Amino acid sequence: MTAGALGIIAGGGELPIAVAEAAVAAGRDVFILALKGSADDHVSRFAHEWNTLGEVGRAMKLLRAHGVGDVLLAGKVARPRFSEVRLDAKGMMVLPKVLAAARKGDDALLRCMVSLFEDEGFRTVGVAEAAPALLANEGVLGRTQPSEDDRADIAVAAKVVRAMGALDIGQAAAVCAGLVLAVEAAEGTDRMIARVGELPEAIRGAPGKPKGVLVKAPKPLQDGKTDLPVIGTDTVRNAAAAGLAGIAVEAGAALIMNRAGVIKAADEAGIFVMGFAHDAYPG
Amino acid sequence: MTAGALGIIAGGGELPIAVAEAAVAAGRDVFILALKGSADDHVSRFAHEWNTLGEVGRAMKLLRAHGVGDVLLAGKVARPRFSEVRLDAKGMMVLPKVLAAARKGDDALLRCMVSLFEDEGFRTVGVAEAAPALLANEGVLGRTQPSEDDRADIAVAAKVVRAMGALDIGQAAAVCAGLVLAVEAAEGTDRMIARVGELPEAIRGAPGKPKGVLVKAPKPLQDGKTDLPVIGTDTVRNAAAAGLAGIAVEAGAALIMNRAGVIKAADEAGIFVMGFAHDAYPG
Repeated sequence: MTAGALGIIAGGGELPIAVAEAAVAAGRDVFILALKGSADDHVSRFAHEWNTLGEVGRAMKLLRAHGVGDVLLAGKVARPRFSEVRLDAKGMMVLPKVLAAARKGDDALLRCMVSLFEDEGFRTVGVAEAAPALLANEGVLGRTQPSEDDRADIAVAAKVVRAMGALDIGQAAAVCAGLVLAVEAAEGTDRMIARVGELPEAIRGAPGKPKGVLVKAPKPLQDGKTDLPVIGTDTVRNAAAAGLAGIAVEAGAALIMNRAGVIKAADEAGIFVMGFAHDAYPG
Repeated sequence: MTAGALGIIAGGGELPIAVAEAAVAAGRDVFILALKGSADDHVSRFAHEWNTLGEVGRAMKLLRAHGVGDVLLAGKVARPRFSEVRLDAKGMMVLPKVLAAARKGDDALLRCMVSLFEDEGFRTVGVAEAAPALLANEGVLGRTQPSEDDRADIAVAAKVVRAMGALDIGQAAAVCAGLVLAVEAAEGTDRMIARVGELPEAIRGAPGKPKGVLVKAPKPLQDGKTDLPVIGTDTVRNAAAAGLAGIAVEAGAALIMNRAGVIKAADEAGIFVMGFAHDAYPG
């Protein structure tokens, strides 16, 4: 059985494009269904069509017309005001289900989206399967190693992230000398890191004398098909600017965009970037 | 046995002053040990002395000289750079213990401070005992009632706050339509609320069509002697400005500063303020 082309439902950010690049590099046909108002214009480098969130029937038809077998959801999608979403017939049919899921949180909403595609006969796949080259490995990526203090902070932050994830809150936390500086919810990781840099200097590090760590790990409910935590060069630069000593992510369950750039940025800033085994901090 | 005067170790904000007012109104002698760099100048309305964090021996002597039997810790204290703290002999003696506790988080640090006073023969008391008039009661305070949707959000937020508290992270969360908008860590409640108002409008309310709730409840480890959650008129105004529909706190385990002002602010903004029983959301 052939899985057909890889269909990427593309929200915002670099991730959908990185996945498309990796899939094409591996010799696979790719079709991007770019979500209007969210997806990056760079999707135009690949076979693509633009679609609104409410045009569900049209989405299914486009995916079939482009020979898509596997569907992957990637990138950030701002929750729309549902009253402003233009719905086609299929969109109207699935709306009650989507609204009910949305009320239960991000994770329920993503699972609902996955089931919509599976009900139409597509196979949904995660980035881990479609673009394994993007997954974080175990170990330190650049030149800077975490200190003993950093490792103690990673243990605390990992525990916090596991607890946050179990409640579908977020997948990132920053800890410095045992103190939880910030926890990510709806604002996203970049804003969370910026907040760390605004805290009183007595409880955090600073560029030049960095202290404390950022940890990202997936929610335990996530099945890898949806919203894996991601870091990139911006994450590294922001963490360094906020005075953090480094970043740790779960190996095999977090994505590193532009790995070469991340290593370069980490080495320039003198902070560490590492992957830890799931079993090191099982939650 | 008489408990002597009430000694208030005063950090920042209105709380130490509100406690002093309530104690004096109840006919009790009060002595405020005001922490330099943290306490409000209005402590000068009461018998007081200024003291730095490192002058531990001097603090104990002053409390005894003013006939203090019960000691209460109240108000925010910014963690100092320990390298910059001037230490007297007693301060030097207890420093290792304090530093070790500080590494374990806010809650451990507060418990350590409590034990310092108890080792010196003082009884430590909480606001609940020293100024019970400040505790939140069960029920709605102003004219606006929470809707069914609000109550569903309160249940989610209370669950989140219980989990946060168990990990010594923070004691506040904001939830809208089931989605966790923000969780408090080291930044404090006011900044957390401001962040809610900066999220995309599609996932939150707005002044005029408020939606979502703020919940505050104490960490389960807290023994009521230290850091009970507090709301005041600013909390109400900030929540309204961020588009939240109301505030719910745990009755008997959260403090309401300036209750008349809080009710007035809530009624003017059209948002609710309520206390819920611990057993309604036991965590």
